[in-house]
Amino acid sequence: MERAIELARLAFDMGEVPVGAVVVAPDGEIIGEGYNLRETSRNPLTHAEIIAIDNASKHLNSWRLLDCSIYITLEPCAMCYGAIVNSRIGRIVFGAYDKKAGVCGSLINLGDVPFNHMPVVEGGFMQEECSTLLSDFFRELRACKKEKPAI
Amino acid sequence: MERAIELARLAFDMGEVPVGAVVVAPDGEIIGEGYNLRETSRNPLTHAEIIAIDNASKHLNSWRLLDCSIYITLEPCAMCYGAIVNSRIGRIVFGAYDKKAGVCGSLINLGDVPFNHMPVVEGGFMQEECSTLLSDFFRELRACKKEKPAI
Repeated sequence: MERAIELARLAFDMGEVPVGAVVVAPDGEIIGEGYNLRETSRNPLTHAEIIAIDNASKHLNSWRLLDCSIYITLEPCAMCYGAIVNSRIGRIVFGAYDKKAGVCGSLINLGDVPFNHMPVVEGGFMQEECSTLLSDFFRELRACKKEKPAI
Repeated sequence: MERAIELARLAFDMGEVPVGAVVVAPDGEIIGEGYNLRETSRNPLTHAEIIAIDNASKHLNSWRLLDCSIYITLEPCAMCYGAIVNSRIGRIVFGAYDKKAGVCGSLINLGDVPFNHMPVVEGGFMQEECSTLLSDFFRELRACKKEKPAI
């Protein structure tokens, strides 16, 4: 999760909502990592988890990331949870909860839906560090908007 | 939808589960298309919808596909529905229902979840053509497996 937080900081520095993710193989090796790049890439698919899963799948040359874990600084959205299900990742560990879009208990719990693969989920891991990064980001964003009002 | 079915046929010919998708701009222009490539690409993200959304977003140079529609031969999975929500596509039209993974009424109806964007959904459009393609594919697959038993 420490590496995921580092990645989230890279997103922060680029003016992106700070979310980072790493995919870890069963032997503990990081095989995929990513951070949110939606604004920079102008692409709705470039959430941290999607980039990390894409990297991991290229690393293993397989769509099956069996027995891997994904560490994410923020509760996943439906797209990212679905990508985790589709890639057969066994375990999700996330930091902050996302009241607006999180599907691991916040907006809905997709863990209750009988998908053909059901990852184990652990939420609130290193929650304070992950949440602080997000609240700092949105505080700065609001301050900037106040300084530079829209024309 | 006819173009989406053509795309699904391309997937069929490659030995992929035949699913096709097109993103259509408000003026009727197709701005993104894709077909399932999971086995060929060895990548869990390469569903038809994801490829079509990726193309459309590059075409518009924006993560917002506002007022666009997506035509899909099969009910979307959680990943693809989430990507549609994230890209702000306004309307989903799909053909066949997917009892095992569909999230527009089959396994769950994510239209009931108050996401920050809620596309209009029309299911069962040209359902017979879309379903036939899928059942033909799985019939051939079973026949091949029977001919060539796993060692």
